[in-house]
Amino acid sequence: MDTLSRLERTVAERRAADPSQSYVASLHAKGLPQIARKLGEEGVEAAVATLSGSHDELVGEAADILFHLVVALQARDIPLAAVLAELDRREGRSGIDEKASRSA
Amino acid sequence: MDTLSRLERTVAERRAADPSQSYVASLHAKGLPQIARKLGEEGVEAAVATLSGSHDELVGEAADILFHLVVALQARDIPLAAVLAELDRREGRSGIDEKASRSA
Amino acid sequence: MDTLSRLERTVAERRAADPSQSYVASLHAKGLPQIARKLGEEGVEAAVATLSGSHDELVGEAADILFHLVVALQARDIPLAAVLAELDRREGRSGIDEKASRSA
Amino acid sequence: MDTLSRLERTVAERRAADPSQSYVASLHAKGLPQIARKLGEEGVEAAVATLSGSHDELVGEAADILFHLVVALQARDIPLAAVLAELDRREGRSGIDEKASRSA
Repeated sequence: MDTLSRLERTVAERRAADPSQSYVASLHAKGLPQIARKLGEEGVEAAVATLSGSHDELVGEAADILFHLVVALQARDIPLAAVLAELDRREGRSGIDEKASRSA
Repeated sequence: MDTLSRLERTVAERRAADPSQSYVASLHAKGLPQIARKLGEEGVEAAVATLSGSHDELVGEAADILFHLVVALQARDIPLAAVLAELDRREGRSGIDEKASRSA
Repeated sequence: MDTLSRLERTVAERRAADPSQSYVASLHAKGLPQIARKLGEEGVEAAVATLSGSHDELVGEAADILFHLVVALQARDIPLAAVLAELDRREGRSGIDEKASRSA
Repeated sequence: MDTLSRLERTVAERRAADPSQSYVASLHAKGLPQIARKLGEEGVEAAVATLSGSHDELVGEAADILFHLVVALQARDIPLAAVLAELDRREGRSGIDEKASRSA
């Protein structure tokens, strides 16, 4: 089983746990705004690490983004497979054109 | 070949393309601050979509984050495999403890 | 009349304008999520400019943050004076203690 | 003396304090990436509060942005007056045109 599938399953399992014992459960207990906030903050931290962090810091921030992205998707009942399917769908397109279509 | 591996290969190929023809090449031509900025902005957009976007909007923003995360990692010569390995490494840990160790 | 008061009055006036003629009106026409998104993105841009931008770029991004902050406050019917009063209220406190109380 | 001038003076005074006693000094001790990161995170928090926070939460987040913006500007030796002058300079322009010129 690959890493992201395992991560998704783990996050789903923790969601029902005791919020005092599980970080994922504590995020869900605080509600969607807190989950959204954490995802946005991880984006900022990854941006700063891209510019000025060490190799290990950027690896850690990238892992944090993936983790919190999975949490956010699950909070909205969206499987990671839907996001991967969207990436596959875009794959046929190229460069500037692809971005332009996404910006529309 | 899975989606993220294909995405990583595609982004690597486009990096050397003509910036007027490829969005990835145009990001690299603008430099690391622009790549970092886009990654951070996608984090904000995904956060807002988590709170108030439609299903399709959140799927699209999640795909955008993954795309720009791969671009940022490549700009720092970090393979996505290093990030997945970090997620695997964390997998053995649980909930609150894991987050606490990451915050250290 | 000082700069921020004038900015607040100008933004309020533009809010009722034709969205095709006014950036402020166009933001309001798109709704609160778009206003929130722009504010968050300006935060990212100011962060990147703090790290790697020129003097003029950071000045421009800081002005963008103030502008979009005023737009967001008005969208929630909050006068800038309420924010300044909050800063005044905090002023009596010092350093670590102040931040700790805000984090609570 | 107005609020922002007093805030700017206070932040400048704290900068030279003992990092264990002052939040501002502790930010400066951690360096520019940490200051940039905090500013970006406050942008995310204000965006989330704009969408889903209470009146008081948005007031608090707006105050946090102004505080961390002043810290970031001082870290780059830029007076707040330079940002206010930029806002004054833009004041003569209107709506869409102004934004277009800033995007250039």
